[in-house]
Amino acid sequence: MSESFSFTKSKWEVLKDKKLYETPIFSLHEKTVKTAEGPANHPFYVLNAPEWINMIALTPDEEIILVEQYRIGVDEVTLELPGGMVDDGEEPLEAAMRELWEETGYKSEEWEKTGFVSSNPAIMNNYTHLYIAKNCWLDGPQKLDGHEDIDVHLMPMKRFMDLVRSGEVHHTIVVAAVAHYLLSGAHSA
Amino acid sequence: MSESFSFTKSKWEVLKDKKLYETPIFSLHEKTVKTAEGPANHPFYVLNAPEWINMIALTPDEEIILVEQYRIGVDEVTLELPGGMVDDGEEPLEAAMRELWEETGYKSEEWEKTGFVSSNPAIMNNYTHLYIAKNCWLDGPQKLDGHEDIDVHLMPMKRFMDLVRSGEVHHTIVVAAVAHYLLSGAHSA
Repeated sequence: MSESFSFTKSKWEVLKDKKLYETPIFSLHEKTVKTAEGPANHPFYVLNAPEWINMIALTPDEEIILVEQYRIGVDEVTLELPGGMVDDGEEPLEAAMRELWEETGYKSEEWEKTGFVSSNPAIMNNYTHLYIAKNCWLDGPQKLDGHEDIDVHLMPMKRFMDLVRSGEVHHTIVVAAVAHYLLSGAHSA
Repeated sequence: MSESFSFTKSKWEVLKDKKLYETPIFSLHEKTVKTAEGPANHPFYVLNAPEWINMIALTPDEEIILVEQYRIGVDEVTLELPGGMVDDGEEPLEAAMRELWEETGYKSEEWEKTGFVSSNPAIMNNYTHLYIAKNCWLDGPQKLDGHEDIDVHLMPMKRFMDLVRSGEVHHTIVVAAVAHYLLSGAHSA
């Protein structure tokens, strides 16, 4: 293992944190801060959100389980890893097991955490926890809530990697999960 | 190359797009939509932002150029790839060249695009364009604006990869750039 990095900068001081707007997914906050040089001359804006999770879920013959759905942010239909929000009182691993089951109907008894990423350190306060689930089996139908409308797709890992490379799979946290998968030594490519 | 993916889902129809709040980094919008099953029974929330860029910038002896700064979203000091926003009227590659020069003082004449990611397809409308810049040289001092306060660090690629694996480098778009770098064949690890 390498030595850890020694940071040289100091944190700023948050003088005021004002909630401007609340949505079911995040709340928008305006922060007044003091930098190393003194009080900042403008406020900063941050989204507070619960922790998120996603997972590389594999069947016994090493096919990856993916979800296709409409995403309103980019106004496009996307292909992604299963994932979602950690509910109140839930552990991230519990959330990962629940989201895989709800979005795809699959279950696994072999879960491993590959890492985590900050969802966007400049404007979001939360982290996303990344998992691998091996030897998944189809337990039953999807359990979708609200307006969720998700198609499930299975494909060989090599094809998935080709779709990441080409940009057809483009969700940044999905692609970050691929980096942790590649760096974890879990892959055999 | 693999065949491209054939999507089966349809896009929703955006019936109304109301701007709720504007900040210098993004604007918050409330969208009223019609899904495949009819009008949704609640609005959705999206951030509109300009395109973003980041880059894996390497010196002639293959050290990677990194930036250390305080990030208010996570309230932590982070280590990241150089990057930022594409300005009005700028091409993403121009923005990448400008941001590298402003944040680190380095320049390169060997730029290559490794891919792109959607910054968060569920809640953001924008994409981040990912570059490699080779044989960078130090052209002069940093040109920081506003409250930017950035330390520059150089390290061997292997150490950077260790810091990604351990989570000390955790910005999701930085980690996504690592995935594209690993999949591009540009690395020799």
